Formats: sequence, structure tokens, C-alpha cells
Amino acid sequence: MRGKFITLEGGEGAGKSTQAGLLTSWLHDRGIDAIQTREPGGTPGADAVRALLLDGNIPFTATAEAHLFAAARADHVESLIRPALAAGKWIICDRFIDSTLAYQGAAGKLGVDIVRTINETAIGDTMPDLTILLRTNVDTGARRARVRDGDETDRFSMRDAEFHTMVARAFDSFAQEDPGRFAVIDAEQSIEAVARAIRSAVEAQLP
Amino acid sequence: MRGKFITLEGGEGAGKSTQAGLLTSWLHDRGIDAIQTREPGGTPGADAVRALLLDGNIPFTATAEAHLFAAARADHVESLIRPALAAGKWIICDRFIDSTLAYQGAAGKLGVDIVRTINETAIGDTMPDLTILLRTNVDTGARRARVRDGDETDRFSMRDAEFHTMVARAFDSFAQEDPGRFAVIDAEQSIEAVARAIRSAVEAQLP
Repeated sequence: MRGKFITLEGGEGAGKSTQAGLLTSWLHDRGIDAIQTREPGGTPGADAVRALLLDGNIPFTATAEAHLFAAARADHVESLIRPALAAGKWIICDRFIDSTLAYQGAAGKLGVDIVRTINETAIGDTMPDLTILLRTNVDTGARRARVRDGDETDRFSMRDAEFHTMVARAFDSFAQEDPGRFAVIDAEQSIEAVARAIRSAVEAQLP
Repeated sequence: MRGKFITLEGGEGAGKSTQAGLLTSWLHDRGIDAIQTREPGGTPGADAVRALLLDGNIPFTATAEAHLFAAARADHVESLIRPALAAGKWIICDRFIDSTLAYQGAAGKLGVDIVRTINETAIGDTMPDLTILLRTNVDTGARRARVRDGDETDRFSMRDAEFHTMVARAFDSFAQEDPGRFAVIDAEQSIEAVARAIRSAVEAQLP
């Protein structure tokens, strides 16, 4: 039987990687062979593209950047996610298509439609069975990201706050458009309360 | 007035880069500000992607590779080709969309349709005004490429010959489907005869 494909989405500092780890452990405890991964990255090819994207010295245009993300995603989907699901394994992925649509599409220069077209060719029919949207207000996310990154510089300037508000609104609208795929969880709660809410979404939506 | 966008296409050893240089010089002599470029590459971002593609140690899936080519192309189009054309300059480009459709699409694993979809998002409306297809038979191309590359190893094995025949057939079919854009030139002739044929195609098709 095909495994389940679960993605975690949300803004900076929403707790996605922490919760991905907790969910993966919980699935392991239940005897499910679950693989925790993240984007961009997850395979040698995708990691090489990630390094290119993070190299601040190379100025890519917005469309080029969208294709680089799509290249990393195609490699991740074809080399890791699709074969694992076919083998009955579960995939728990920190960020996937919705982050790209929110950051490069809705809040970036390109708009959602062209980013969706670019990514459809990378993903094919390998869409998530369940997407956990961790909702925080932008201020909480900024504070958590600052603590995590261990510096006091204000990475969230006023302009950034506007950008991150656009990202948050985009996630909300994706969830409203596709309630069958999304579980929206209040990530202002404690880590344990969020983890419980995620487990119950997984149990409810994935028979 | 917008400049003209001319691409040179054809298999290995057809003489594309030699002819691109001769055409660019001839245009310069006529007082036209022409820029010679090539794909993949042509901008710092596209060259970085080219390096990633040529690094044989990283195994990319076919779809990932197609998106990497598209990323390089988007950067080249947006950073160099489109602004140059808008400024009235001519672009002479060694390989463009038709090579991708022939190599990754027709002769590769993906097929022409998905490669076309991926590339349309990278190119937008910046299609060539004129495409010079340099036609050689596969054996001639193989011999010229061996001489050029200065080694005697047979890079064209039997399987490669089949691949290159598929590429050549794809170029032919693209030219037949779009005779208004393509000028098909017999590249079995001497360099000077091919250059004359190219100049007359440029004069005839670009008033």
C-alpha cells in the first residue's frame, strides 16, 4: 500500500521542523516507517541546488529562482519521495509546494499562477495527502526565528513584516481553497499542545 | 526599435559557434550592435547553473535537469537577451529552446510537451525572430566534434548515433512546423558557403 505524504507549512519560527521531528518519532513508535525530510534539499542534487540558491553572490532573476526551486523539488520528488511512497513508507516534509506558492508566488514578484505552472511539471501527481498549516501571528514567528538563529539583529524590518503578512495570508487562502488537504493548527500554543493537535489531524484524516 | 533575436541550432559539430562568430562580425561591419552569446550560460547566474549541470558527480533526474536548463535560460533571457533587444541590440545565440526540445524532449526521457511547458515559463514572449538550423548528417557532426575536441575516443557509440539521429529528426520536424521562423541550411558545405547562406537568410527574413 502506498505510504502517506504529509507536509508541514507556515511562516518563519512556526515550529515546523520541531513538529516534523515529533510527528516522525510518534509514527515510528506506532511501527510506521516514516522519513523526515525538508525543502529545498533532501537529495544530493537538491542540496546542490539549495547551496546555489543560498550563495548570496549569484544574482538570479525571480523566474530563474523559481525554476531552481522546481529543479530541487523535481529531484526530491523523483529520487526520494515518490519511490518511498511507492514502497509504503510515509514522508514527513518540512515545506513543499505551498511555501513556494506563498513566498515566490503570492508575496514575491511572479504571482501564484506562473509559480504553480512551473511546479506542476516538477511534482506531477505527487501531491501531499495532508498538509499541516502551523499558524502564528507574524510577530511571534519573528521572535522565535530570532531566538532560534541566536542573534539580536532585526531580520524582520517593517518591509519584511509586510512580506511575511502576505505569506501568512497566502497560506490561509490555500487552506480555505483546499480544506480536504489542509489541517490548520494554532501554533501559538505550547509545543506539546501543537503536537497533540497534529497527531489528531493525522489520525482523523488518514484512516 | 527592438533588436532582432537570431538563434543557431543543430547537432554536435555542425559549426554553430563558428558561424555565430562570423555572423556577429558581419553584422558589426554593417553597423549593427550585435551580441554573441550561447546556452546554457551567458550570465553569471546561468553560468553557475551550467557548472552544476556539467559537474558529473551530481545525479539529477531528467525533470530536475530540465528545470535547471530552464533556470539558466530564464536568467539569460531576463538579464541579458530581453533588455538588449529592448535597447535595439541584436542577439546571436548559439543554441536556445529548440536544442532543449530536441535533446531533453524528443531524444531524452521527458518528451517534447512537458519540456515545452517548462520552458515557456522561462522564455515568456521572447522567442527568436529567426532560427538558423545547420543540417549535417550525424557522421559528419561526429567527425567534426572529434577533431574539435582533439581526441580520438569515439564519443559517438552506436547508441549515441541513435540518440543523435533522434535529435536531428526533431530539429527537422521543428523547422517543418514553423517555416516562418526557421532557415534550414546545408552545413555539409564549406564554412564560407554556409556563412553566405546564413547572411542571405538574415537579409531575406529580416527586412
